[in-house]
Amino acid sequence: SHTDIDYDRLERTGCPEVIYGAGKTPVQIEEIARNLLDAGQNVLATRLNEDALLHLSGAFPEADMHPEARLMRIISSPPPQAAGFVGIVSAGTSDQAVAEEAALTAEFLGSRVRRYRDCGVAGLHRLVSHLDSIREATVLVAVAGMEGALPSVLAGLVKAPMIAVPTSVGYGANFRGVTTLLAMMNSCANGVSVVNIDNGFGAGFNAHLINSLASGSR
Amino acid sequence: SHTDIDYDRLERTGCPEVIYGAGKTPVQIEEIARNLLDAGQNVLATRLNEDALLHLSGAFPEADMHPEARLMRIISSPPPQAAGFVGIVSAGTSDQAVAEEAALTAEFLGSRVRRYRDCGVAGLHRLVSHLDSIREATVLVAVAGMEGALPSVLAGLVKAPMIAVPTSVGYGANFRGVTTLLAMMNSCANGVSVVNIDNGFGAGFNAHLINSLASGSR
Amino acid sequence: SHTDIDYDRLERTGCPEVIYGAGKTPVQIEEIARNLLDAGQNVLATRLNEDALLHLSGAFPEADMHPEARLMRIISSPPPQAAGFVGIVSAGTSDQAVAEEAALTAEFLGSRVRRYRDCGVAGLHRLVSHLDSIREATVLVAVAGMEGALPSVLAGLVKAPMIAVPTSVGYGANFRGVTTLLAMMNSCANGVSVVNIDNGFGAGFNAHLINSLASGSR
Amino acid sequence: SHTDIDYDRLERTGCPEVIYGAGKTPVQIEEIARNLLDAGQNVLATRLNEDALLHLSGAFPEADMHPEARLMRIISSPPPQAAGFVGIVSAGTSDQAVAEEAALTAEFLGSRVRRYRDCGVAGLHRLVSHLDSIREATVLVAVAGMEGALPSVLAGLVKAPMIAVPTSVGYGANFRGVTTLLAMMNSCANGVSVVNIDNGFGAGFNAHLINSLASGSR
Amino acid sequence: SHTDIDYDRLERTGCPEVIYGAGKTPVQIEEIARNLLDAGQNVLATRLNEDALLHLSGAFPEADMHPEARLMRIISSPPPQAAGFVGIVSAGTSDQAVAEEAALTAEFLGSRVRRYRDCGVAGLHRLVSHLDSIREATVLVAVAGMEGALPSVLAGLVKAPMIAVPTSVGYGANFRGVTTLLAMMNSCANGVSVVNIDNGFGAGFNAHLINSLASGSR
Amino acid sequence: SHTDIDYDRLERTGCPEVIYGAGKTPVQIEEIARNLLDAGQNVLATRLNEDALLHLSGAFPEADMHPEARLMRIISSPPPQAAGFVGIVSAGTSDQAVAEEAALTAEFLGSRVRRYRDCGVAGLHRLVSHLDSIREATVLVAVAGMEGALPSVLAGLVKAPMIAVPTSVGYGANFRGVTTLLAMMNSCANGVSVVNIDNGFGAGFNAHLINSLASGSR
Amino acid sequence: SHTDIDYDRLERTGCPEVIYGAGKTPVQIEEIARNLLDAGQNVLATRLNEDALLHLSGAFPEADMHPEARLMRIISSPPPQAAGFVGIVSAGTSDQAVAEEAALTAEFLGSRVRRYRDCGVAGLHRLVSHLDSIREATVLVAVAGMEGALPSVLAGLVKAPMIAVPTSVGYGANFRGVTTLLAMMNSCANGVSVVNIDNGFGAGFNAHLINSLASGSR
Amino acid sequence: SHTDIDYDRLERTGCPEVIYGAGKTPVQIEEIARNLLDAGQNVLATRLNEDALLHLSGAFPEADMHPEARLMRIISSPPPQAAGFVGIVSAGTSDQAVAEEAALTAEFLGSRVRRYRDCGVAGLHRLVSHLDSIREATVLVAVAGMEGALPSVLAGLVKAPMIAVPTSVGYGANFRGVTTLLAMMNSCANGVSVVNIDNGFGAGFNAHLINSLASGSR
Ligand SMILES: Nc1ncnc2c1ncn2[C@@H]1O[C@H](COP(=O)(O)O)[C@@H](O)[C@H]1O
Ligand SMILES: Nc1ncnc2c1ncn2[C@@H]1O[C@H](COP(=O)(O)O)[C@@H](O)[C@H]1O
Ligand SMILES: Nc1ncnc2c1ncn2[C@@H]1O[C@H](COP(=O)(O)O)[C@@H](O)[C@H]1O
Ligand SMILES: Nc1ncnc2c1ncn2[C@@H]1O[C@H](COP(=O)(O)O)[C@@H](O)[C@H]1O
Ligand SMILES: [Mg+2]
Ligand SMILES: [Mg+2]
Ligand SMILES: [Mg+2]
Ligand SMILES: [Mg+2]
Ligand SMILES: [Mg+2]
Ligand SMILES: [Mg+2]
Ligand SMILES: [Mg+2]
Ligand SMILES: [Mg+2]
Repeated sequence: SHTDIDYDRLERTGCPEVIYGAGKTPVQIEEIARNLLDAGQNVLATRLNEDALLHLSGAFPEADMHPEARLMRIISSPPPQAAGFVGIVSAGTSDQAVAEEAALTAEFLGSRVRRYRDCGVAGLHRLVSHLDSIREATVLVAVAGMEGALPSVLAGLVKAPMIAVPTSVGYGANFRGVTTLLAMMNSCANGVSVVNIDNGFGAGFNAHLINSLASGSR
Repeated sequence: SHTDIDYDRLERTGCPEVIYGAGKTPVQIEEIARNLLDAGQNVLATRLNEDALLHLSGAFPEADMHPEARLMRIISSPPPQAAGFVGIVSAGTSDQAVAEEAALTAEFLGSRVRRYRDCGVAGLHRLVSHLDSIREATVLVAVAGMEGALPSVLAGLVKAPMIAVPTSVGYGANFRGVTTLLAMMNSCANGVSVVNIDNGFGAGFNAHLINSLASGSR
Repeated sequence: SHTDIDYDRLERTGCPEVIYGAGKTPVQIEEIARNLLDAGQNVLATRLNEDALLHLSGAFPEADMHPEARLMRIISSPPPQAAGFVGIVSAGTSDQAVAEEAALTAEFLGSRVRRYRDCGVAGLHRLVSHLDSIREATVLVAVAGMEGALPSVLAGLVKAPMIAVPTSVGYGANFRGVTTLLAMMNSCANGVSVVNIDNGFGAGFNAHLINSLASGSR
Repeated sequence: SHTDIDYDRLERTGCPEVIYGAGKTPVQIEEIARNLLDAGQNVLATRLNEDALLHLSGAFPEADMHPEARLMRIISSPPPQAAGFVGIVSAGTSDQAVAEEAALTAEFLGSRVRRYRDCGVAGLHRLVSHLDSIREATVLVAVAGMEGALPSVLAGLVKAPMIAVPTSVGYGANFRGVTTLLAMMNSCANGVSVVNIDNGFGAGFNAHLINSLASGSR
Repeated sequence: SHTDIDYDRLERTGCPEVIYGAGKTPVQIEEIARNLLDAGQNVLATRLNEDALLHLSGAFPEADMHPEARLMRIISSPPPQAAGFVGIVSAGTSDQAVAEEAALTAEFLGSRVRRYRDCGVAGLHRLVSHLDSIREATVLVAVAGMEGALPSVLAGLVKAPMIAVPTSVGYGANFRGVTTLLAMMNSCANGVSVVNIDNGFGAGFNAHLINSLASGSR
Repeated sequence: SHTDIDYDRLERTGCPEVIYGAGKTPVQIEEIARNLLDAGQNVLATRLNEDALLHLSGAFPEADMHPEARLMRIISSPPPQAAGFVGIVSAGTSDQAVAEEAALTAEFLGSRVRRYRDCGVAGLHRLVSHLDSIREATVLVAVAGMEGALPSVLAGLVKAPMIAVPTSVGYGANFRGVTTLLAMMNSCANGVSVVNIDNGFGAGFNAHLINSLASGSR
Repeated sequence: SHTDIDYDRLERTGCPEVIYGAGKTPVQIEEIARNLLDAGQNVLATRLNEDALLHLSGAFPEADMHPEARLMRIISSPPPQAAGFVGIVSAGTSDQAVAEEAALTAEFLGSRVRRYRDCGVAGLHRLVSHLDSIREATVLVAVAGMEGALPSVLAGLVKAPMIAVPTSVGYGANFRGVTTLLAMMNSCANGVSVVNIDNGFGAGFNAHLINSLASGSR
Repeated sequence: SHTDIDYDRLERTGCPEVIYGAGKTPVQIEEIARNLLDAGQNVLATRLNEDALLHLSGAFPEADMHPEARLMRIISSPPPQAAGFVGIVSAGTSDQAVAEEAALTAEFLGSRVRRYRDCGVAGLHRLVSHLDSIREATVLVAVAGMEGALPSVLAGLVKAPMIAVPTSVGYGANFRGVTTLLAMMNSCANGVSVVNIDNGFGAGFNAHLINSLASGSR
């Protein structure tokens, strides 16, 4: 077979290999998923297009399909659950697909998640009304497009470390998320680090790593 | 003389010609200032370097020198005062020179100004503590560097139109204010328009135009 | 429901929430519009694609549909009318969609509008022939693509504050409006501030804010 | 006084205010430091130029000066020590100043640090020879300039979460660290998030947050 | 005929003219291929879209079609074989099309090729397991997308000169390979030079030139 | 000697070699100038810094020194004079150095020049007042910084071909003339072509070529 | 009607209005063309897509349609012919559409044209073989994509002024012609000015202006 | 000691460690050089500033100092000489420092070098006059600034593989060599690969690798 799967990754890095669906055919994805299942691993496949979602939901009736977040999960043996939870705060309606990719990834790896939606900074009261709950999170993920101000505002109000995810939501001088990414990089608040544009997976992965560390579960 | 002064500008655009000091010698600036004074106009000179500030304070004992904002004002006949006031909100210590350029410009043209300093979004309580006063302004100027989140946050809390000024404060992926400018362009809040990086003068000018309109003083 | 509508925005910022149609399904837009109507608010929905325009004109027979500007308005209780008017000056044929988004937004909010089309600076006489009328506006919106020279030229001829809107009309080194935006940012004329590329809505909103201030109607 | 110090930040965000020295005069920095000391807080001042370093070492004989990392620390009451340690891995000689800023920040906040220098990927054996020690870290900081490959390579070999810091070391098409930042953003390895160019402080801060979470010390 | 073929190129530069298929119709490509065949030259056509692949496989039954690499070869008189071989190392599944363009080009010109797939630096053991074989190559081609770390890592482990090929695989801040190209340009390892994004052809051509020099076959 | 002067250029391209002073020592420039004089050619040296201006005015008492435009001319045998003239229109005070480089170059090569200064588009009446004279030019050079609107406006009012020269005058989002260059590239007016930022020499050269063609003097 | 045609442009600028077809419907283009014909002007319409080409060839049987160059010409009264000719030199097959836009524009306005195709600098003999003919041109247009070296090489061999046209032909780090444009801007050869990417129309227009000046025909 | 020298590199990669002087103090460089000498290796130190050059010529009387190329060589045991030679072709006077860095590096490693200066494409006869000699080279280095056309032109005339080096010579839209680098990346000629801006060292290194392969000396 063409692809040399990194079965050993779980051992080495603490996490199984995840299938990045972009640029792969539905059949290729199915094949890799079967190999992982055969090796006794849980399966997470992200960035699935409509064809792949359709094909895979046929091929794996036991799978958990998430069209909004464009991903599939097959969990044969649930991972150990970390004690704390990951808080995932998103700004606008259009940022929710990326926020959901982060949430479903963190859950797949063994973290509980609380979701806070529509917390854009142009209507600060929405963010503020959730603050008590947000402050209980072990680690936060902040997902925003456009000017990407959410992580700066939120990080000034909480103690938890925060992963910021710029999204490609915006137009004109937004450059498909590049302005958002750069703004987040320049956050004047402490405790913020950044992942690539629309990289909900990476944010969920990082957040789980930190949450499980904090829970002593690793 | 080399420079062809636009005396008529006051008539045509409602504002006198202002001297942009960058790239002019102290003597050239003095010469233009004298011509404006001779024509009965008030003088505002911006972007003065240390040499120019020194030379002009000698040449015009009656002048009002502002080294922090790098400008000089000579007001022979005070302009009519507009009724409302311009609120100028700035984020960090390093943004104050630009904020002051805006404030002194607006005052020069006939607007009263209230200044709100150190209102960066990483410590939201500072902004919030001034909100009642800020809400009384006719028009707002928001001055910020780095990720430039201040206008988005503030515009969601007030009714007044707002001029956002990105500053060149920042480092790395800030690109001397370009990231800030782009972020402000993408503000998710309504009622925000933007001027060039560090353009305190332009913001003060616009704010006065709007304030004087609102005061029926034009 | 997924979206947490900011009903209170009218109170807080003086303007109702507006529906940004890009990235929303026709059904989502209909749902938000119904909620706003139920809450007694007027409805403005922008950036509607053809599907959304079709669906919404069916769903809301009372709506005022504007395919050229890609927006829909439903006005149950007309807003108070400001005394002055907004002048909207556009450069070329292809800038008219954006200019119209600005015009229809300002009208929706309570401002009268005069439109000046085909005023590109390559044929200066066209602009000049409208100058007497333009000079009566309380506030101006200048919409242009390509090299974006219109605001610079026009601002030197008038007293009113001006919102410049770069459009994505152009090719090659225009970069879908980025060159235009940057050029407008560098305007050598006073009294110009800028909104995002193609952001007719933002310009109309700002212009109305200023116009209503000037009319003492707020 | 000009600057409105955020004394309350310790309470709200778990960390005291830190003085960002760039663009402040030595006297301004001294003044803020004295206020923090008076409020019973430890002092960390970063980005000090030579003048500031000289002035402050005179003003605060008790201070701990670090010219290489351009920072000063005054620790009146040592913070609680977290149980684990932060591993700080740097690529080349010229990246050490940034790595040291990260290390001294993490120590200031209460984390122990192990430093791994000269681990650039062009001589992989150097990185590999430290791997057993590196794997014991709770959290890692990876500091590199030029093509920024270190985080990708290292993250594939370890379980700990990693903060990547691009440095402005390089020339030509490096663009003072922008290429490095972008490359790190695109890391093909999991568990990596990124802070701004040369932002050793931010990396040390994040790493300590995570380390102290993992130690149950918060 | 429209196109003025450079038959003499073989003589002058040691290599026949190669057909760059992008932007040419299937019929234009066929015509040029026939002219080259008539002139007694072998034919290599790259960047063929699906239409062109289909048309040409009908037009030239003797051709060797490679849909994955999007190219066609017609070899009437096999070129002299160089003694050594070109090693082509690629990082991820999605880089294989470009790697294959390089491999098939080098073979077309007279070099033997060994292919090493799935050698991305996030799983270093895969690269290391091939190292003994890789070290036998006369010259190497390294093909990678995303952060493009492969050439830096590999060049530090081998003596052979290396041509690095950035691919357009990636998303967000990858900018279709530009980040990868810039990172490769900044490689901290010696012996690396770079060709354009996705330019497998150019890499294969360069590699063959060097391999044939080393084999004394030119 | 290190430099291989292209004496034959006059014959081949119709113009003598010109000395580009940037990056050359005063002594190197003197040496090249002497060689050109010995070969019977006139000498034009541009981009001279203060040291070079001083040294050369000592070395060549017969030279014509222009510190403002940073150039030197030594004309032993005056070139044939073209019949028409080159009109050189500049926008602001700070654009005059570049405009003068263009003017002195065109004169050096044999064209008469008329200079129109302070014709920035923010005060259109200044440009318009010169229009009758400007319309007599054979060819025009338009020199402007900031938003670079001058060529668009002027080209719409005249028949002559126009060379636009962006200058590096501006700040913030001007990027040392890049915005200006891009804006000029997008001019909506016909008959405009563009040279590099601050390239007064190139504009003067082109303008003379066209003027001499039009005068039948070549 | 929506569009305010600039009939007077012929008088003012020496050339009739030309229809820029991009972004206009076939019916809009037909309408403008009819108006121009009714006003006694010749018609040139550029950037026509396939729909427009089809519609217009039906609507104007007398028109001269050029699908390759995507333009239409209707010449009722032939313009005066200039004495010299415009030489249009293009580099690759894919640059011919732009070269043809230039050629057909220059002819439309009254210049004769000689076309030199496939003169890319990678096979210098092709350019050199045409040099005697090229040297007879009054003015040259050089059309090239990719690295855009053609104008530099050619301008060093000839006396005529040259308009360089970058094309969007290329891939990867070509950025749809931006690299080509920038390279042309930096040409080390004298006598070159540049128009926007793919702007064959602008180049043809400029070339005709110069040619007709040289012919004394204006 | 601070720096962990990679003595083993000679064994592993066929070349000794080279000292990159930028950002190191003269004393640090001396120390590393002594360590290399003690280990029996030859020393090459590049990117030396004036202080370092002065200090090192005092510290190592046996050293071979090259201020023009900013480097130092200490050769205790001459490397084996490869049979062929490296041809180094440079465009302008200002490119010679980079060309010399390449030449001295290749010689240091064991290759003979022929230098061809002032071969810019704007005066093609200079390049052509050296062509017979250039064609004898085993491998070529082409060094150019501005539009970087030299490699494209030269590669079309020769068989040898070519390393192109963009230099930071240029102004305005050259962006300190970035335009040159991008143009070279887009070379339409075969057999060209590119190294970083001003990276003469890298080019000389690559060229020697290839030359020594071709000479069978490795
Ligand atoms: N949505 C995603 N965004 C970024 N990286 C991902 C995503 N999903 C998976 N990955 C990474 O891509 C790797 C698999 O890449 P591949 O070998 O191309 O399937 C996984 O191990 C993850 O590290
Ligand atoms: N055409 C438009 N351009 C920019 N912003 C808009 C536009 N239309 C609506 N908006 C803004 O988008 C907000 C709604 O965003 P959303 O919650 O995603 O529907 C509105 O309150 C407006 O502030
Ligand atoms: N100010 C200038 N701007 C651009 N190019 C110039 C300038 N002055 C001279 N040149 C060009 O530079 C060439 C000389 O370059 P060099 O051989 O480096 O002295 C001249 O022949 C001109 O083509
Ligand atoms: N292919 C073209 N490229 C650039 N500009 C063009 C082109 N064709 C026409 N134009 C210009 O566009 C103007 C017409 O623009 P419009 O009013 O939008 O039709 C003409 O007068 C020309 O100046
Ligand atoms: Mg925090
Ligand atoms: Mg508001
Ligand atoms: Mg005005
Ligand atoms: Mg890991
Ligand atoms: Mg190597
Ligand atoms: Mg004209
Ligand atoms: Mg020439
Ligand atoms: Mg060749």
